[in-house]
Amino acid sequence: MKEYYKKVQEFCKKNDLDIDTEWIFKALCHSSYANEVVRKGMNVESNERLEFLGDAVLALSLADLLYREYDVDEGVMSKTRAVVASEKVLAEVARNMNIGEYLLLGKGELKTGGRGRDSILADAFEAILGALYLSEGFEIARNFVKEKLGIYIEKALNKELVLDYKTTLQELTQGNLGVRPEYSYIENIGTPQNKLFHVEVRVNGKALAVGYGKTKKAAEQDAARKAYEKLLKDLEEQGIEPKNSERLT
Amino acid sequence: MKEYYKKVQEFCKKNDLDIDTEWIFKALCHSSYANEVVRKGMNVESNERLEFLGDAVLALSLADLLYREYDVDEGVMSKTRAVVASEKVLAEVARNMNIGEYLLLGKGELKTGGRGRDSILADAFEAILGALYLSEGFEIARNFVKEKLGIYIEKALNKELVLDYKTTLQELTQGNLGVRPEYSYIENIGTPQNKLFHVEVRVNGKALAVGYGKTKKAAEQDAARKAYEKLLKDLEEQGIEPKNSERLT
Repeated sequence: MKEYYKKVQEFCKKNDLDIDTEWIFKALCHSSYANEVVRKGMNVESNERLEFLGDAVLALSLADLLYREYDVDEGVMSKTRAVVASEKVLAEVARNMNIGEYLLLGKGELKTGGRGRDSILADAFEAILGALYLSEGFEIARNFVKEKLGIYIEKALNKELVLDYKTTLQELTQGNLGVRPEYSYIENIGTPQNKLFHVEVRVNGKALAVGYGKTKKAAEQDAARKAYEKLLKDLEEQGIEPKNSERLT
Repeated sequence: MKEYYKKVQEFCKKNDLDIDTEWIFKALCHSSYANEVVRKGMNVESNERLEFLGDAVLALSLADLLYREYDVDEGVMSKTRAVVASEKVLAEVARNMNIGEYLLLGKGELKTGGRGRDSILADAFEAILGALYLSEGFEIARNFVKEKLGIYIEKALNKELVLDYKTTLQELTQGNLGVRPEYSYIENIGTPQNKLFHVEVRVNGKALAVGYGKTKKAAEQDAARKAYEKLLKDLEEQGIEPKNSERLT
């Protein structure tokens, strides 16, 4: 454990995280590890509450940066933040920070490649942000967000960063099931003035998800995102390590 | 205009809002008023960007209070925040602050009772929070949230404050799609001793979600909540600011 403490201190130093070690320790503690330890009779809290807090720190930091530094309306602010705060972007940042190496994971997660999993990495990044906020206050946390994610805001506003879920889903189904998803347009469930398209996505003939959107393209993306998340969860529950290349276009 | 400035200063004083008048002015400026003025060739910004910012200030303030002051897990934190940050609660707080009286509204909104509308009041409250944050910083804004909403956190945790998702969903579908949701009871999938009702909610004839519960009412609320969250997420991802219709209580 002393060894681990030293490692974590190195991690903080490398990433300019001037933060109490106790906090960072909590942020790196995945629920799978906490559960294991609790079963042994010790009391350890997982990073889930810190992640909830950090998610809000991230949302306000990005809103602040978009408000002060960019002359864009609230619709663009909202979309841009959704892309920048997406699991893929946060996982990428977490990888650059080398967070995976320092995570405390349960045995099951360790075996199935938890250190490299997008969802675990993105959650840990948020938890670290929550820890930084509690330890050093909002200003410091916001500056950290700017340093790590400023470039992604620029990219998202320049349309160089779009979450393309159709491609992502296709890579997942081809990599794991050897097939491509099929989309079928169902109908417009809105009014002619206020359209809301409805699209279904099927894999191997089985309906996986339905999506809604103001345009058919948006409805397809919505359906693809839902199907992707569902399929990913199914695979993970079966203990299959999903094969796909992560795609941010 | 001089008269209005004086009134707004009184409003700030009464509500302990130590904040630059220029900011508060912006926060009270509804888009209907801004649009009217812009048509006359003047340049006025509505409170929509401030509202986006204020929404995030509110979310972090509540997450912070729940993290530090209550020993509840992230699921309870999330549910509690959703209730406290709901349109109904925020509109109630805005009414207690008498915000409606000071709002700048377009002629159409004035005629149709905009000063008393939940959605306009809740949005203005968030915009004021955004203004307070920009003018005085996060600490002051969080303390303001605690002062105004602390009692609602207590109530929500004590189950004295519950979101009526059927009403909330109806407001959302009427405001955005011009229709009301329909509920259909499917079956009891439990046993006679241990009932579990199963209800489907449809919008424009399309199934949006299914809900389960020990009673039909609980199953309806469950279905309404799922449909509401789904629809809201869909709208937000498309960058559409959800419109809630007026609710008569």
